[in-house]
Amino acid sequence: MRRPSVRPSVGCRPSVVGENAMESPALGLAAVTVSAVLQQAYFSLQVIGARRKFRVSPPCTSGPPDFERLFRAQANCSEYFPMFVALLWTSGIFFNQGVSCACGALYLYARLRYFHGYAESAQQRLRPLYVSAALLWLLVAFSCVGILSSFWRLCFHANGRHPA
Amino acid sequence: MRRPSVRPSVGCRPSVVGENAMESPALGLAAVTVSAVLQQAYFSLQVIGARRKFRVSPPCTSGPPDFERLFRAQANCSEYFPMFVALLWTSGIFFNQGVSCACGALYLYARLRYFHGYAESAQQRLRPLYVSAALLWLLVAFSCVGILSSFWRLCFHANGRHPA
Amino acid sequence: MRRPSVRPSVGCRPSVVGENAMESPALGLAAVTVSAVLQQAYFSLQVIGARRKFRVSPPCTSGPPDFERLFRAQANCSEYFPMFVALLWTSGIFFNQGVSCACGALYLYARLRYFHGYAESAQQRLRPLYVSAALLWLLVAFSCVGILSSFWRLCFHANGRHPA
Repeated sequence: MRRPSVRPSVGCRPSVVGENAMESPALGLAAVTVSAVLQQAYFSLQVIGARRKFRVSPPCTSGPPDFERLFRAQANCSEYFPMFVALLWTSGIFFNQGVSCACGALYLYARLRYFHGYAESAQQRLRPLYVSAALLWLLVAFSCVGILSSFWRLCFHANGRHPA
Repeated sequence: MRRPSVRPSVGCRPSVVGENAMESPALGLAAVTVSAVLQQAYFSLQVIGARRKFRVSPPCTSGPPDFERLFRAQANCSEYFPMFVALLWTSGIFFNQGVSCACGALYLYARLRYFHGYAESAQQRLRPLYVSAALLWLLVAFSCVGILSSFWRLCFHANGRHPA
Repeated sequence: MRRPSVRPSVGCRPSVVGENAMESPALGLAAVTVSAVLQQAYFSLQVIGARRKFRVSPPCTSGPPDFERLFRAQANCSEYFPMFVALLWTSGIFFNQGVSCACGALYLYARLRYFHGYAESAQQRLRPLYVSAALLWLLVAFSCVGILSSFWRLCFHANGRHPA
């Protein structure tokens, strides 16, 4: 996560291609992460609007069903935010950046549809919820494949390969 | 996020300055992150104290208004914790370490005032809440500037620059 | 957090041992992080099961005490998830990978016992809760030691040491 390590020193930077390859993973993952934060900000603003509309002032969290659904939609999305970010980066670093970012973007879209669906009715939250859960499981699978293959490479390197 | 990459190998470590520059970003960001965790621990201990004082035993989360405000203050801070950490690191890596750490420290101070303000009354939470939200938006702006300029540099490097 | 930085370029990769040392910290920490996400998924599935069993349909979060305890157990674990991951990585990068992963694994076990204890009664959650809190404090201590010693090394490098 440290940018300066990208160019460790002028003396040992033989190729620009290597440098690009190094900077690109963090870039895509960081862009998806910031988008996820912006989405959470949008959800929070929706809840603040609903608090005004339905006259539910903090610290109260119960009110008319329309407010409670919106409140729970936002709470559920915040609850999954850290897990999503952790999986996004694990999968992006150990498996593949592009695939992880694509899954991440789809997840954010599913969460947006979940939020607006839940605002309508508890029933309408279900389909986007299943889609978002499936995407998280996909990121879990990618992370596991990436970690296991890195572990495999690590053992292989330590035992069988010799430096050129 | 991997410390060992700071000194990749004895063979290609030509300068100590480069090494310091590499280690410093992670250090400041890590210090602010650990401070944020300690603050959350402090808030949790306050809620545990309030549970005893107002005799609200878990799993119950409703009680006298004084307890509910404290409980919501802590819940709100935990909810924003992962977003704050994600923005702090993105902004610190892609934009500037010092500026991000300063924003982060101010954010933690605003959250402390928010917590104690909310404990007094729902009204007194507002000003520090606006300050903390403004600081988060600042970190979002820094992150976006950093990501876009890294992206720009990446394109520039890939197309126009040649290794020396 | 960027894998490609492990092999910066063919030109400056003198030893395989260095490379292994670089890849291993991220690997263990990533494995514990993914396990923590899987545990959260397990807790969420338990709450979904309890919602069906006790007929508490979303967005409602109150119901019979058996449901409320399970719901609070899951909410409490999600609340601590981002703090746990932040401490795990800070301690793993700045202090020691193996020790941090061991603490992390014990923390996850304590959380599992906490969840099942809380499902039985509020009393039975206490012991594993204290154990998990002690492990988090241990990770805080390791992180602080690691950050301070890195800071010390940084000052020492900048002032007293000269490049070979």
